[in-house]
Amino acid sequence: MAPPEDTQQLRLYADFMSQPSRACIIFSRINGLPVEVRPVLIHKGETRSAAYLKLNPLGKVPLLEDPWVAAASQMTNGGGAGGGGLLLPESAAIMPYLSYRFPGRVAEHWYPRADAVARARVDAATAWYQGNIRAGAMKLVFNKVVAQRLGLQGDERVAADGLKTLQLALASLESYWLDGGSRPFMTGNQPCIADLLCCCELEQLAMLQQDAHGASMQAVLQPYSVVRAWRQRLREACAPCYGDAHATLEAAVRRAAEQRPAAPLARL
Amino acid sequence: MAPPEDTQQLRLYADFMSQPSRACIIFSRINGLPVEVRPVLIHKGETRSAAYLKLNPLGKVPLLEDPWVAAASQMTNGGGAGGGGLLLPESAAIMPYLSYRFPGRVAEHWYPRADAVARARVDAATAWYQGNIRAGAMKLVFNKVVAQRLGLQGDERVAADGLKTLQLALASLESYWLDGGSRPFMTGNQPCIADLLCCCELEQLAMLQQDAHGASMQAVLQPYSVVRAWRQRLREACAPCYGDAHATLEAAVRRAAEQRPAAPLARL
Repeated sequence: MAPPEDTQQLRLYADFMSQPSRACIIFSRINGLPVEVRPVLIHKGETRSAAYLKLNPLGKVPLLEDPWVAAASQMTNGGGAGGGGLLLPESAAIMPYLSYRFPGRVAEHWYPRADAVARARVDAATAWYQGNIRAGAMKLVFNKVVAQRLGLQGDERVAADGLKTLQLALASLESYWLDGGSRPFMTGNQPCIADLLCCCELEQLAMLQQDAHGASMQAVLQPYSVVRAWRQRLREACAPCYGDAHATLEAAVRRAAEQRPAAPLARL
Repeated sequence: MAPPEDTQQLRLYADFMSQPSRACIIFSRINGLPVEVRPVLIHKGETRSAAYLKLNPLGKVPLLEDPWVAAASQMTNGGGAGGGGLLLPESAAIMPYLSYRFPGRVAEHWYPRADAVARARVDAATAWYQGNIRAGAMKLVFNKVVAQRLGLQGDERVAADGLKTLQLALASLESYWLDGGSRPFMTGNQPCIADLLCCCELEQLAMLQQDAHGASMQAVLQPYSVVRAWRQRLREACAPCYGDAHATLEAAVRRAAEQRPAAPLARL
């Protein structure tokens, strides 16, 4: 017999070094959801292993597995390993799904189920994050840092294009979404999934070291005081989950700084 | 007195040359929604005019205006010109909003309201579109063609990075979302908003001319027969709205081809 719906255990395949993974982890923990985190480490090639590709042929994290969804429903809606259960990629789909899946646990402000206008604003903020904050920061960090770690060639001009996109995005985050500081979070007085996604993406800028990469989180965020205050506000609103979910990234950043020779490197 | 809810007129600020604008236009027309299209022409600077920036400070199209939303609700949810009414950016938020706004007109397959699993699949497909099909095709076309038209400098290496992203995306569209051809549309037997968004984005590749840009839609799509068949299927499923919405783009492509000198150009 299946356990009561709101205690059924789900699985989240995630890497603490992945920005959208962290957003889903924080979301699950702060809302006390029965979601077990299963680590899949990108830098060890685990997202490309045969076993993982059976779960998610897209080869990405995060991925949510809800084994309690009937096979028929899954078949109708495409994707997945065929054995029943939902296998859902994309953080921007995972968090809304969890919100509808556990309505007694997830407060409306995270992802509004009842108010269509509020939900539309959160959907807009989430879509905007993808084409702006994510598009910019990801290209910047990938080409400056991550490519090298994965043995790939980063491209300085693509990184520069990413930085330009990110700077425009930070200006819009500050003036439009946070209304110049008069709106505490992107869509209102309390955080939504877009706040989590944007902020976890910006945390990745910690991988940039001024001496090695010619850029740093501090330098990038410096002109945007409203964004910096919002970041601190979100971290506090999500304590201790937010800090816990970033411990792995912070440790990696410390290790990289210690291992780096004193002389400046400009490998890219 | 307000007219009945499902006949209340909404406004969509859109440019037929913008991929996400076309998706929203097709969605509105095929579902017979009371949505008036108000042209805002990007290449004439109209998205940056003072009047338009008052409506959408992000300076982008499409934008949906629903004047029937109470001011209080709008204030709570942030953004907008303050005079009441909802001003909603982002195509990936506009179409779900319209689906909930006109439930008697928009069939479930476009954006599932009743089935949380089906909705999650559409949300995942829509999020994936943004980080993959859109991220790739937009960078490619912008840096190869659009930048020059706007008097900006395109970057060949950013364009090449966009092409690489797009090619990976087309392979995943073919194998995962369309299940190697056994799934007619991205999430099932009928089209959803992600099909529209992806396909309208790919149509923009028509702006690439092999002789001038070293790339063309035909060459880019050639290896992906399942994608090509799906594109034709969507066009037919959405006839005549789909073709009508692309008439402006097709005319622009024809004009550009006629104006181009016989000798190859390689300005970028």
